[in-house]
Amino acid sequence: MKRFSVGADLGGTNLRIAAVDESGKIFEKISLATRAQQGRDTVVRELCRAIRELTQKQEGAGSFAGIGVGIPGIIYLKTGTVRQSPNLPGWENYPVRDEIESLLGVRVFLENDANVAALGEKWIGLGRDVNSLCMLTLGTGVGGGVVLDGKIWHGFLGMAGELGHIVVAENGVACSCGGHGCLETEASATAIVRKGEEAVAAGRSPALAEARSKAAKLTARMIYETAKAGDAASKAIFESVGRYLGIGIAGLTNALNLPLYVIGGGAAASWDLFAPAMMEEARKRSFIFREGSTRIERAVLKGDAGLCGAAYLPLQVSAEQ
Amino acid sequence: MKRFSVGADLGGTNLRIAAVDESGKIFEKISLATRAQQGRDTVVRELCRAIRELTQKQEGAGSFAGIGVGIPGIIYLKTGTVRQSPNLPGWENYPVRDEIESLLGVRVFLENDANVAALGEKWIGLGRDVNSLCMLTLGTGVGGGVVLDGKIWHGFLGMAGELGHIVVAENGVACSCGGHGCLETEASATAIVRKGEEAVAAGRSPALAEARSKAAKLTARMIYETAKAGDAASKAIFESVGRYLGIGIAGLTNALNLPLYVIGGGAAASWDLFAPAMMEEARKRSFIFREGSTRIERAVLKGDAGLCGAAYLPLQVSAEQ
Repeated sequence: MKRFSVGADLGGTNLRIAAVDESGKIFEKISLATRAQQGRDTVVRELCRAIRELTQKQEGAGSFAGIGVGIPGIIYLKTGTVRQSPNLPGWENYPVRDEIESLLGVRVFLENDANVAALGEKWIGLGRDVNSLCMLTLGTGVGGGVVLDGKIWHGFLGMAGELGHIVVAENGVACSCGGHGCLETEASATAIVRKGEEAVAAGRSPALAEARSKAAKLTARMIYETAKAGDAASKAIFESVGRYLGIGIAGLTNALNLPLYVIGGGAAASWDLFAPAMMEEARKRSFIFREGSTRIERAVLKGDAGLCGAAYLPLQVSAEQ
Repeated sequence: MKRFSVGADLGGTNLRIAAVDESGKIFEKISLATRAQQGRDTVVRELCRAIRELTQKQEGAGSFAGIGVGIPGIIYLKTGTVRQSPNLPGWENYPVRDEIESLLGVRVFLENDANVAALGEKWIGLGRDVNSLCMLTLGTGVGGGVVLDGKIWHGFLGMAGELGHIVVAENGVACSCGGHGCLETEASATAIVRKGEEAVAAGRSPALAEARSKAAKLTARMIYETAKAGDAASKAIFESVGRYLGIGIAGLTNALNLPLYVIGGGAAASWDLFAPAMMEEARKRSFIFREGSTRIERAVLKGDAGLCGAAYLPLQVSAEQ
C-alpha cells in the first residue's frame, strides 16, 4: 500500500494544506486565509479541521505517515514550539506541535518554512539528482535552507540556514538581525524597493519616479517593469542584487562545495535581470564555481516547495524506520 | 588489543610522521626536512621509510589500522592524487596514495592538510565534546576545514572547506584565488605583513618603520611586538584581522549554526590582539552567536593537529567497519 502524508504551509497570510503521496504527487490541496488576528487556537483548529478532511478522504488509498508543518520563524525542534515568528504574533513559546498532535492523535513534524522549501526542492524539485543543496528564498526577507546528504541541516541549536544573514556588504545598511550588509539587506524584495526609492530620491530614474507617482507605493514589480523597459537605474538595481547573491553563493560554495544553489521566492521572478551579474560574481569569487559543475538555478516548485517539503518530513522519517 | 595508526603531515618544508593509538596518544614522532627539490619519489621513499620504522617498533603493541597523510593543496579523494599544491611543485596528478600503498602494502588515506587539522581538533583537541566544527588556520594563507557530525565535510567535488575564500571585504584587495576581499587577503599572516607595509609607507607607524629598518623584512611577529609595545597603527592591524575573522565566522554561524570555530596556525599567536575585535564583530553580525553558546577558541593541538587528524582517518574508518 502506498504511503501518504499531509504537509502544511502556515504563513502569516495564507494557510495551505496538501495530501501528498510518497512519489511527491499532490492529490488534494486546501487553501485558507490564516486568521492570525483571531488567535493561535483558532488557526490551529482550522488547520486540524482541514487536515482531518484531507486524511479522511484518503483513507483506504494508502497508509498515513503523519503531518509536517512549515512555519515562518525560529522553531525549537526538540520542544516543537515557536521561538520567534514576526508573522505569527503571540505564538512565542506556544507548544504548537503538541497541540496539533493532541487534537489529531498523529505524529507531527514542525519545521522552519525556508527549511521545508529547501527540502521540497531536494525531494521532487531541482535537487532530485543531488544529495545536498542550499536554497535562498527572496521575499520580504531572504530565507535560507541547507540540505546536506538529503536532510535539513539544523545546526546544534536548530538555527542553521539563516543564509539571509551572511555578510555580503562589509559596510552595508542596517539589518533587522542587528547586523548590517547582510544578504537580506541587499537581495530581498524589500532591498529592491529601498534601492528603487534611493534611485528616485537621487533623481537617477525619471521612469521609476513616474511609475511611482501613479501608484500608492513603489514595488519590486514596478522596478522590474521599468528595468525591462530599458531604464538604466532600474537595471542597475537588479545587477546589484545579482552581485550580492553571487558574493554570498561564492562564499557558500568555497566553504561547502555543494552541487546546487536554488533561488526561489517572489523576487526570483526577476531572474533574467539579476542572474547574469550573479553568475559573473560567483565565477569571479569562487575557483570551485569556475570548475564548472556547480549549479545556481531558479526554483521549480514555486509556491508548492514548502508544502511538499513539509509533507516529506514524516515520509522521510518513516522510510528510515 | 589496542589499535594504532600512523599519521603524516607532509608540508612543503617539514615532513612529520607519528604513531598514534586509538586514544589519540602520540607514542613516537619523527621529523624530517621535506626534500621537495629532490623530487616526489625521494620524498615518498623517505616518508615510507619513516612509516616502516614506526610501525615495526609498534608491532606486537597493537593492531595496525593504516596510514593517513595530510597534504597541502587540493586533493582528488577518489583517485588519491594531488590536483594542485603550491608547496609541492611537480606533484600534480601524481598518484601519491597508490605509490605509498604499493611501497608499504597498507591502506592509505589522503587528505588536505587543513581538513586533517580540523579533524584532529575534533578528535582530541578543542572539539572533543562537539559533533561539528570549523577550523581556520591563519598562516601564509588561511586554510579551512569543516567537520560535520564527526566527519570531514568534503562537498561533491572534494573541495569544501576553503574558508579562506569566503568573501569578507566586498571591495578588498585581489586574492590568489582570482577573487578579492577574501578572508585570506584580510586575516592571514601575509595580510598582516601587507597591512604593516601599508602603515609604514603611509607614515602611520614610526615604531614599525624603525623595527623594519633593522631587519631584512617585515614579519607578522614584528608587528605583534610593536602592537604590544603600544603602537596604535600596529594594534589597528590586528583589530582589522579580528573584524574580518568575525565577519567570516558570523556568516558561517548564521549558515551552519555550528557549536565551535577553532582558530589555529602561526598567526593565531596574536590571539590576544585580534580576539576582542573578532568576538565583537561576531556578536554584532550574528544573532545566533549572541544567543551565547557558540564558541570561538584558539586551537590547542598546535602543530600536532594535522598529524593527529591524519592518524585518525584510518582509525575512524576501521571503527565504523
